[in-house]
Amino acid sequence: MTGHATEPQHVDFPYGPDGTSWSALVTSAGLGEGRATVIAEPARDPRQAYPEQDELDIADFEIPAEGMSAQQRKRALNRLETYLVGKHETMVGFQGNQDMARYQQDLARFMEFHLNNVGDPFQQGNYKPNTKIVERAVLDHYASLWRAAWPYDAENPDSYWGYVLTMGSTEGNLYALASARDYLSGKKLITEPGDGGDQMVYVQAVPASEEPGNANRPVAFYSEDTHYSVIKAVRTLAIDTFAAVGRAEYPGQCPLGMDWPMEVPSRGGPDGTGEIDVDALEQLVTFFAERGHPVLLLLNFGTTFKGAYDNIEKVAARLIPVFERTGLLEREIEFEPGRTDRRRGFWVHVDGALGAGFMPFLRIAAAEDRGSDLALQLRREIKGKIPEFDFGLVVDGVDVVSSLVMSGHKWPGAPWPCGVFMTKNKFRVEPPSQPAYTGSPDTTFAGSRNGLSPLVLWNDLASKSIREHAAEAVRALRTTRYLESSLRELEDRLDREDRLPDGGLYVDRSPMALTVRFRKPADHVIEKWSLSCQPIRTGSGRIRHYAHVFAMSSVTEEKVDAFIEDLFAEGAFDRPHDVAEPQRRAGAQTFATDVRPLALVPVIGRGFQ
Amino acid sequence: MTGHATEPQHVDFPYGPDGTSWSALVTSAGLGEGRATVIAEPARDPRQAYPEQDELDIADFEIPAEGMSAQQRKRALNRLETYLVGKHETMVGFQGNQDMARYQQDLARFMEFHLNNVGDPFQQGNYKPNTKIVERAVLDHYASLWRAAWPYDAENPDSYWGYVLTMGSTEGNLYALASARDYLSGKKLITEPGDGGDQMVYVQAVPASEEPGNANRPVAFYSEDTHYSVIKAVRTLAIDTFAAVGRAEYPGQCPLGMDWPMEVPSRGGPDGTGEIDVDALEQLVTFFAERGHPVLLLLNFGTTFKGAYDNIEKVAARLIPVFERTGLLEREIEFEPGRTDRRRGFWVHVDGALGAGFMPFLRIAAAEDRGSDLALQLRREIKGKIPEFDFGLVVDGVDVVSSLVMSGHKWPGAPWPCGVFMTKNKFRVEPPSQPAYTGSPDTTFAGSRNGLSPLVLWNDLASKSIREHAAEAVRALRTTRYLESSLRELEDRLDREDRLPDGGLYVDRSPMALTVRFRKPADHVIEKWSLSCQPIRTGSGRIRHYAHVFAMSSVTEEKVDAFIEDLFAEGAFDRPHDVAEPQRRAGAQTFATDVRPLALVPVIGRGFQ
Repeated sequence: MTGHATEPQHVDFPYGPDGTSWSALVTSAGLGEGRATVIAEPARDPRQAYPEQDELDIADFEIPAEGMSAQQRKRALNRLETYLVGKHETMVGFQGNQDMARYQQDLARFMEFHLNNVGDPFQQGNYKPNTKIVERAVLDHYASLWRAAWPYDAENPDSYWGYVLTMGSTEGNLYALASARDYLSGKKLITEPGDGGDQMVYVQAVPASEEPGNANRPVAFYSEDTHYSVIKAVRTLAIDTFAAVGRAEYPGQCPLGMDWPMEVPSRGGPDGTGEIDVDALEQLVTFFAERGHPVLLLLNFGTTFKGAYDNIEKVAARLIPVFERTGLLEREIEFEPGRTDRRRGFWVHVDGALGAGFMPFLRIAAAEDRGSDLALQLRREIKGKIPEFDFGLVVDGVDVVSSLVMSGHKWPGAPWPCGVFMTKNKFRVEPPSQPAYTGSPDTTFAGSRNGLSPLVLWNDLASKSIREHAAEAVRALRTTRYLESSLRELEDRLDREDRLPDGGLYVDRSPMALTVRFRKPADHVIEKWSLSCQPIRTGSGRIRHYAHVFAMSSVTEEKVDAFIEDLFAEGAFDRPHDVAEPQRRAGAQTFATDVRPLALVPVIGRGFQ
Repeated sequence: MTGHATEPQHVDFPYGPDGTSWSALVTSAGLGEGRATVIAEPARDPRQAYPEQDELDIADFEIPAEGMSAQQRKRALNRLETYLVGKHETMVGFQGNQDMARYQQDLARFMEFHLNNVGDPFQQGNYKPNTKIVERAVLDHYASLWRAAWPYDAENPDSYWGYVLTMGSTEGNLYALASARDYLSGKKLITEPGDGGDQMVYVQAVPASEEPGNANRPVAFYSEDTHYSVIKAVRTLAIDTFAAVGRAEYPGQCPLGMDWPMEVPSRGGPDGTGEIDVDALEQLVTFFAERGHPVLLLLNFGTTFKGAYDNIEKVAARLIPVFERTGLLEREIEFEPGRTDRRRGFWVHVDGALGAGFMPFLRIAAAEDRGSDLALQLRREIKGKIPEFDFGLVVDGVDVVSSLVMSGHKWPGAPWPCGVFMTKNKFRVEPPSQPAYTGSPDTTFAGSRNGLSPLVLWNDLASKSIREHAAEAVRALRTTRYLESSLRELEDRLDREDRLPDGGLYVDRSPMALTVRFRKPADHVIEKWSLSCQPIRTGSGRIRHYAHVFAMSSVTEEKVDAFIEDLFAEGAFDRPHDVAEPQRRAGAQTFATDVRPLALVPVIGRGFQ
């Protein structure tokens, strides 16, 4: 085929940065059969296509064929920054600290490298412009805070292993669940037989005939307040939930005396505190453990909407005897004919997206001398003990937690999503040996990993003493209490003026949560304050529409005051057309026998992770 | 339980930043049963634990309990920067542009926000400090370059849909394969029956009895030069490969007349060009298509080690008739009793980690007037036509490509991993409806997404005209040619001095590749130049150890000259104890019948993605 090309055809669009014409290069060349277009022409004006842009205009950002001058780019970026500054000031609705004045000054210079921590954090590898040394320091620090054995030691089964995530906890949950699935289902990586040792084969053990048929079939349990990323992970990873197996194989036999729920109920139902119902969990787990299934348990430490902490210590105290009785505390796995190991038949993953970053500092405060200011302040905020969630939790001689994840952009806060995944050596399914290419084993979920994120975490952690971090954590609890009392006071003020909406403001806060939930306000308030909202079905079957505010350290009492004043203003709770009961879809009222429900995907979303 | 705490116990370590003592706060408090430690004490000195740190000392980075002063932090960060500057200058071994002087100046100010593009790029959502408007401009730009219908239009089945990745192509490949698996296996998200429409259930269709038993069982195909992240994705997602199904269900029936290979052979075998063997692929796909399996095909456009391009146009020309004959071109799927749709029985995913970012600009150059400088330069570098890979490729009336991914840190280059995933509306499995919480549907792989990455891509794309981008792409090809000829010249020089290692330098370059491979040099050269290395088994069964250099735009001819001089120096190719044939592992010479090989995991790794 001759490759002769035609004259490029310029198409001008009647808009663009600064009124200059915006042209796309649409041209045809002799490629393939006939004439192929080099660049696709837009089907319509992007301004019409993306109409929901309230304060920004896509026309300022679409990239013209002639590029943009430095001045044009600067003008567009200035518009974006102006928009962001406005939104930044009033962002109270999501659980991310917005306090990040220091990052630019301290770390901007590292934007001049491609920082890529490809592969395992504990092996340098061949890609040298990395920040693995800082990553290790960050991991050591969290290992210390989470009471794991540190520094990392490949020879010690109880040593921590982990890495700094490139996404937030979504990645960590996915990695944890994939690890748990492989661990519990008897997978192990072995060298390719007969192929010279330079390749590995990932194998699935087939259960020996003596074994109960379910020994390699883990079943997952998590509460109805769990983050939506977990549901996504479960279906991405093709992990069976108790609900799917229960409905398919044990219809009508749910030990809770009801239809199989899709998730483990929360204490007090959908409008309760948001903690998992330990009694219900125990009954459900017992049912499947007795039938030989390994148990994959995901617990929340700081749920996304209510900020609730599952009572992990109580869960362990109830379930470890069940695991002991059903042979799941330790069992033999034949991962390859004639080769066995002993491992647990259960995995406890803690999604500590918010709580795991925050709670260790409360523990520091609690360990202070009783008479210290910090200890006094803490006792004003917290009556009971600090809840357990990490590798230091030992119940009946069992170190309960198999893996733990937290989101760095929540606490301490970061310019973009990041986080930490951690487990112990003894729970890791044998990773592939060192790939020759990168010189570093591919043990992490991402191959290439963001090398600036460890610096972001490091810079914040190192910039304060551990007691200053502890004081900041206690202060956030105080702000949350201030927020709660301000909302209750607002309810009174509105009531006195006869402006309180029917049913009140639904103000509520779960124990020790950094968030207060309340009646969803009008859209203009949601927009201004970046509020996240969620409908919750009450015990009586009604839907209540909630918003919540997280009192991260960037939220001050002054900001709370300004927010309350906006809520006190006329029209702050006017909502058009709120449907109390959503419409049922016609048809499909029950599950047909030839459809297998796998996992529940909430439309009532569960947040920002 | 009473919560009284003890006096904190300080443990001093005999090292730390600036010789100051480094203390960890190790204390016990009345938590749980007995006394729990608040912070874990290190088991040993981290300096001993992480000995492989050549130029950096972990002691400078471990975070002491008292925090670090601004000066201490600055000193540590300076050490890191000094290290990085050195490595940055000589980074030629990985396919990432290192040219990023502009990012700090233009974009550092955006580090003062938490930029999180949570959820779908085309819906603003409730988290307002986001950069979705810039993300859309970037996606529109790539849609235009990749000849998809743009701007995004939810109503148009042929419209592109995509998002900017938070990881590199690893995330994009994972998302593409998960999408393909669900699409091909008949999954669909439907509203929870009878539960008021506020929840969704993810269901697995059970094939109707008329259908062949394999209709919902996709089988994956990819070549032996495929990136290791794909193998990881396949096992993470529990996708069957042709190798696993072939060995388990059709032993001895491989249409290639050999034992079932674990992956589709590459043209010319392991030491060939790195392109997929289209003849072998056709035979393998035909075998499974005839048995009713839907086909999940992953093709490479720029392999990691050899930089090779699968001939996607030829693959399509061969396979579309096979799909037509076996009913896979379009088929009816009953995703729910009584509800059907028509969709394809195949999915073509293009891993264009490097190539998809680079090749469009060559196409721009090829479309220039024949007499233009750029067109002349291009003809000097490329003899044949520009290979096809994107949404504009139509064969026998079929738009071949289902999904496409590229890594932003490769071309154009970025301070951290990022990239773009793209598909068309018509290939998307129905996502969950809009989660109320974030106000934006959870259609992407990550929930929270890095909001600075779209700015990084935008800033580079916008800073040049499309012809300047094209000229840069042609220049990179010229540098690669210069690199290749310099290496061949080096071989001659070494030979003249009788210093050429036995067997020569193995200099080789695949067609149009941006990389040249050659004999692996001594470790000090690998360290200095961040070379990535890979052993390759030759036709005769010997293992050759290779390194490669990528001529990204940050690699100049001057840098190539300096590199060649290092290779000419005494000892540059001295390697201790290279094992020509790796040792076979004792036992496990064949697959036992009760072990099911799922996927090959290369120890011979396949790169940085």
